[in-house]
Amino acid sequence: MLAKTEITISDNTIRRLTLYLRSLNELNAIGRTTVSSRELARRLDARPAQIRKDLSCFGGFGKQGIGYPVSFLIFQLERLLKIDKQWDVAVVGLGNLGIAIGNYSGFASRGFRIAWLFDRDPQCVGQEISGLTVLSMKDLESTLLENNIKIGMITVPSRHAQEVANRLVGCGVRALLNYAPLNLSVPDHVFVQDIDPVMQLQRMTYYM
Amino acid sequence: MLAKTEITISDNTIRRLTLYLRSLNELNAIGRTTVSSRELARRLDARPAQIRKDLSCFGGFGKQGIGYPVSFLIFQLERLLKIDKQWDVAVVGLGNLGIAIGNYSGFASRGFRIAWLFDRDPQCVGQEISGLTVLSMKDLESTLLENNIKIGMITVPSRHAQEVANRLVGCGVRALLNYAPLNLSVPDHVFVQDIDPVMQLQRMTYYM
Repeated sequence: MLAKTEITISDNTIRRLTLYLRSLNELNAIGRTTVSSRELARRLDARPAQIRKDLSCFGGFGKQGIGYPVSFLIFQLERLLKIDKQWDVAVVGLGNLGIAIGNYSGFASRGFRIAWLFDRDPQCVGQEISGLTVLSMKDLESTLLENNIKIGMITVPSRHAQEVANRLVGCGVRALLNYAPLNLSVPDHVFVQDIDPVMQLQRMTYYM
Repeated sequence: MLAKTEITISDNTIRRLTLYLRSLNELNAIGRTTVSSRELARRLDARPAQIRKDLSCFGGFGKQGIGYPVSFLIFQLERLLKIDKQWDVAVVGLGNLGIAIGNYSGFASRGFRIAWLFDRDPQCVGQEISGLTVLSMKDLESTLLENNIKIGMITVPSRHAQEVANRLVGCGVRALLNYAPLNLSVPDHVFVQDIDPVMQLQRMTYYM
């Protein structure tokens, strides 16, 4: 396992790389085969020099007047971000948000298959969402261990989120996408990304 | 209107302040009246020195052995982030995600009231979600202008997101929370925050 100290590319760079990948996939979808750093910069409201710097590690591509080969760059970025294979993801909490996530097709096309759904409510267990049956929390550990699941999404109310995180981590989950508006406490080898739309709104009202 | 060049606190600092505020509200909810920078740091996996620096602009509080007065700090942070009054928000796109947002009570308690819902689908228009009637996109401009709405959430499919953004900006919206996985193009005076769970997952798989 990689410890945090062994990270070689900064998190800010990784964040930008995921943004480039998303934009390159859009270009690929409309049949574009090359793109210049200038055009990518315009699309992403970024600086061309920053893009060239970030992509320089992928070899001597992006020559002036030719641009980057779109599909090759997608291939390289997917490999670097380790999404050249698909990851299976477990979602815990099938309220409105969990259901929306279970029904959303945009994960699978970008490297992540919503593979397992769990809820504690007996009325919810057994229901089908996009072809998946909601499982009981009693089956969480056995299912995740058997299927070697490394990524979990937490969509339970805040008061249950830490307990759910503990259980996920306890059966080997290494990455948590946390929709509950609280700071989870996890061991150093586990990664957490929070999605809190209110914090993002507050980051804008400050400027208004 | 504030131009981007007039910003005095960095976006990274603002992001941290929203995190402190969330944690302070949790402490307040359980009846805590003071908190030390060390405890706040432990709760947020941050450095105490960083917290003291970020909060130093709120005067000579946070004395050693006493800590910060929780409710006063909440008051100050809410004022700085301009959420000491409640903002009305318009949500455009009542698919699964929009419905989940419309039903979520966690916005109102933290400064944002989901006040208006819009959809282009005639079958959706007229439905009630948490006491709000879904309005037609035909009424978007008139409703937002009349009610002086400055914040919009975009929960439509990607292919419609830019058009929706243009219409929102066209009637005076200054802040967009964008759930569509694409980079919106907006004028300089408009702020955009993207919520893209796939990008956040990709930021973790890199390390795995």
